[in-house]
Amino acid sequence: MEHEQEITGPSPGRATVRGLAAHLGLSAATVSRALNDRAHVAVETRRRVQEAVRQLEGQDAQPRPRTRRGLVLLRCPYELTDFFGPIVSAAAETLRLHGREVLLDAGGAGYHDTVLRRLPSRRDIAGALLVLPPESAADLEALRASGTPFVVIDPRVRVPRNVLSVSAANVTGARAATAHLTGLGHRRIAVITAAPTLTAGEDRMAGHAAALAEVGALTDPALVRAGEPVAETGHRLGGELLDLSPRPTAVVCFNDKVAVGVLQAAAARGLRVPEDLSVVGFDDIDVSRATTPTLTTVRQPLQELGRLAVTALIRVLEGHQAEALHIELATQLIVRNSTGPAPH
Amino acid sequence: MEHEQEITGPSPGRATVRGLAAHLGLSAATVSRALNDRAHVAVETRRRVQEAVRQLEGQDAQPRPRTRRGLVLLRCPYELTDFFGPIVSAAAETLRLHGREVLLDAGGAGYHDTVLRRLPSRRDIAGALLVLPPESAADLEALRASGTPFVVIDPRVRVPRNVLSVSAANVTGARAATAHLTGLGHRRIAVITAAPTLTAGEDRMAGHAAALAEVGALTDPALVRAGEPVAETGHRLGGELLDLSPRPTAVVCFNDKVAVGVLQAAAARGLRVPEDLSVVGFDDIDVSRATTPTLTTVRQPLQELGRLAVTALIRVLEGHQAEALHIELATQLIVRNSTGPAPH
Repeated sequence: MEHEQEITGPSPGRATVRGLAAHLGLSAATVSRALNDRAHVAVETRRRVQEAVRQLEGQDAQPRPRTRRGLVLLRCPYELTDFFGPIVSAAAETLRLHGREVLLDAGGAGYHDTVLRRLPSRRDIAGALLVLPPESAADLEALRASGTPFVVIDPRVRVPRNVLSVSAANVTGARAATAHLTGLGHRRIAVITAAPTLTAGEDRMAGHAAALAEVGALTDPALVRAGEPVAETGHRLGGELLDLSPRPTAVVCFNDKVAVGVLQAAAARGLRVPEDLSVVGFDDIDVSRATTPTLTTVRQPLQELGRLAVTALIRVLEGHQAEALHIELATQLIVRNSTGPAPH
Repeated sequence: MEHEQEITGPSPGRATVRGLAAHLGLSAATVSRALNDRAHVAVETRRRVQEAVRQLEGQDAQPRPRTRRGLVLLRCPYELTDFFGPIVSAAAETLRLHGREVLLDAGGAGYHDTVLRRLPSRRDIAGALLVLPPESAADLEALRASGTPFVVIDPRVRVPRNVLSVSAANVTGARAATAHLTGLGHRRIAVITAAPTLTAGEDRMAGHAAALAEVGALTDPALVRAGEPVAETGHRLGGELLDLSPRPTAVVCFNDKVAVGVLQAAAARGLRVPEDLSVVGFDDIDVSRATTPTLTTVRQPLQELGRLAVTALIRVLEGHQAEALHIELATQLIVRNSTGPAPH
């Protein structure tokens, strides 16, 4: 029983990282890694940590009061598709392993809400995770100045210097995609990007330009289109691009859904992929493995974005300095069957 | 100013259904429908309600204390894929329109947690929405007996009589899918179902059997397989089924992901869909429009499941009797290009 008391610590029945670390004779950093970052912890260590968490959860079988240490607001004012969903569930899961409860604000109805301005007056909320927040840089700066700890995941706008953010390495990812195409001999490469105000869109255009520059080429504005990142956009704008003369030999898309639309536009014109046209997506969501041919794409580390944002927030909530302000997570080019040598 | 006071009511700066109803001169039921069920409210009424909600949100620009009326726990112990994500975000969004805050418990790490047993002692939680809860019928019955209001969305097990639940009309949906195939002349119809303990799997097998019975046929156990509802299952078990002699002329799948795997198994064997083989999915998630050919499938009303569960829970939280205990929402057969006349 004394043993159990030692594990549970000051917050009865809840596993805390420090409590677990003390119980297992591991550093808090190791426990945190075991809970978060599967790649860099020995399998046996991870197993011990998970076993201890399970034991603690089991002790909770009898109702007991919980100590509340402040909620974390998780705001994602969009439908939880297979892009936003994995970010949100990975963040929620990691917060729970840290003993934090999650207040969810999700769904498009909250897009225009002024929740961030109310946040500083909410004593019950310890901090926030904001997924692709629609607010301006000035709004984010004001929230930071109020002293409310928060982390931006996948920022829509360039975040102010002092605001914590976690994003995918968009420049590098897009550069790898276009370099893959130039390596296959493509030069006439079209791009379907998102709204130009979106940071991720701007960064990916920069990566695209960098890869073209490496082979002595420039982005051709006539081959660039922008639209909502949905399949219909790929179908419509992809169709426009494929009707150009001369036709582009490859299309780089803002995401996999747009790429699905481009594949459909190509099929409608009797173009073979990849013989006549190469198509590249971004994200690596389920659809990229369901198309014929399967999609070459750039994998975003969606779950890791959620997990790392939590780790950064928890550090601040526990009174530590943030280790880094703007964190970028590596993307990975996944070569499948929608890309091939340039025709001729 | 008095005007504004009247709108906001006892809970400053928060829109409540009753407050809105009083302000707009509508019944609470109409306001609730306008917030939830777009189909049965006049466009102009919906616009007025939404406008009033926006006005109220706007008044919140200055930080003010909020009156807390009890959180709603939203538990979905799975990754928020494009199946669970839309349920969760629609529920969260609807709760927010009712002025309720949402405590989220999501992600696979919570699957074995005993959170339901702790629920009755949580004074800060007014009620719960449980998405595909892993708990047994006895656990759900115990929670009900504790007096905690909750609604089960997409039950895994047959829920006890007095437990509120919202699910898709699985029997009817599966029956429509198989009837579509028998109408095309198919009789040798294989099924890839989920684990037999899953209520949805059992109900869909019943619907399948009913449609076969209508043409004087019985389910052939040799043509039934079961597995995890992922693409790999469709690839593997679909492959087994397609290697049978004589081969089935159609495969009915537990969901669209499984159907994607079956399409891949067919392609690997040089079988043309739908000329040699018809394939039907279930759910109508994004992948069903991304495949070649596009998938015939049964659409689940995912967002409506979330919204209607909220409406049912709110009724109980506001002291009303539940209007119905077990609600089934209609599914819809979506005929695309993966089904055609039986060969020969």
